[in-house]
Amino acid sequence: MKSFFVSFEGPDGSGKSTVIQQMVTQIAPFLKVPYLVTREPGGSKIAEQIRQLILDPANDAMSAETEALLYAAARSQHMKETVIPALLEGKIVFSDRFVDSSLAYQGVGRDLGIKQVKQINDFATKGIAPDLTIFLDVKPEIGLARIAKQRSGQEDRLEQEKLLFHQKVYAGYQTVIKQYPERIQVIDANRLLTDVVDDCVKLIIKRLPKELLKD
Amino acid sequence: MKSFFVSFEGPDGSGKSTVIQQMVTQIAPFLKVPYLVTREPGGSKIAEQIRQLILDPANDAMSAETEALLYAAARSQHMKETVIPALLEGKIVFSDRFVDSSLAYQGVGRDLGIKQVKQINDFATKGIAPDLTIFLDVKPEIGLARIAKQRSGQEDRLEQEKLLFHQKVYAGYQTVIKQYPERIQVIDANRLLTDVVDDCVKLIIKRLPKELLKD
Repeated sequence: MKSFFVSFEGPDGSGKSTVIQQMVTQIAPFLKVPYLVTREPGGSKIAEQIRQLILDPANDAMSAETEALLYAAARSQHMKETVIPALLEGKIVFSDRFVDSSLAYQGVGRDLGIKQVKQINDFATKGIAPDLTIFLDVKPEIGLARIAKQRSGQEDRLEQEKLLFHQKVYAGYQTVIKQYPERIQVIDANRLLTDVVDDCVKLIIKRLPKELLKD
Repeated sequence: MKSFFVSFEGPDGSGKSTVIQQMVTQIAPFLKVPYLVTREPGGSKIAEQIRQLILDPANDAMSAETEALLYAAARSQHMKETVIPALLEGKIVFSDRFVDSSLAYQGVGRDLGIKQVKQINDFATKGIAPDLTIFLDVKPEIGLARIAKQRSGQEDRLEQEKLLFHQKVYAGYQTVIKQYPERIQVIDANRLLTDVVDDCVKLIIKRLPKELLKD
């Protein structure tokens, strides 16, 4: 059965969740099959418990390796309980973050190495990759300023990291984008929200198998 | 600085925690340096939170991969916060379970493969292995009968597994023991507790570097 898996990536504050929300509202009338919107870390009961652990600002003693392994553990559970069943039912899956986040944040941001982190994640995902990944491109300075305004002191443990960390994550994303130029499409997210959403809708419709679109 | 790292392994119900408790009481008068008794999964604040997640009987939808990754995550944190600092201070570390448990339980019991599970754990431990591992040998049938008697309905998620799982774990341990015949020493734990403890004490004293023993 045909299905389609889209992940959204980008620095903290790139507007992923808002863009996904508005994109699905606009794209829904064109779709012939049901769609599922989900997020990482989380997206299932066990994975949400792991999410709490990872993002809790009280867990500041967490090692980089532990962080990477917990993200992979949450992802494995998210795949088993949520993503794979939806794909097997022929649904379209939209996920707020996926493996590329781990490659950028833990592989480069935490200096663990992209190759090492990919190996752990191949174990977690059994090698299933998105059909399309949209990278919402904003410079980390701008993303962090947005986060500071929105959250005002309620940032999670990763968002609380200093600018240098987020610059490394951004550089990590650039490396990953070069490795998967066909799968990962970059959209300039420094523009008006409506323009960003429009571009996402057009790109997804262009890539979706015809069988999943209304005639 | 000299230090020494001993792990205790065995099926559920092999009596590890009781043996460790009595062994340290007997061995303490012979030691020149402080010792630390710890356990896995757990052994640090973050690792104990991960332990709760893994062992909670409510989390019966947990995938084998998630389980393996969570054990590795807890282990990485246990290494960073507890084991490595103690070894760097020249202490003797006694750990109730370590990597071999994952190789046997997840690698063989859960059919993930010893090699795959070892790879994830090398990432978690940075390749640090115990100097000596004591395998308390009891047949899984006997171990399970002991557990059922002690816990009476309060078994954790792993202990609740059926006999077939525990038989696979036991077979997994046999494979691992063959791979590390020098590091892993087998002690027959079907005997009187005092005899088992005596053998552990003798074995550890024999293997401990002289610098860590009183003259």
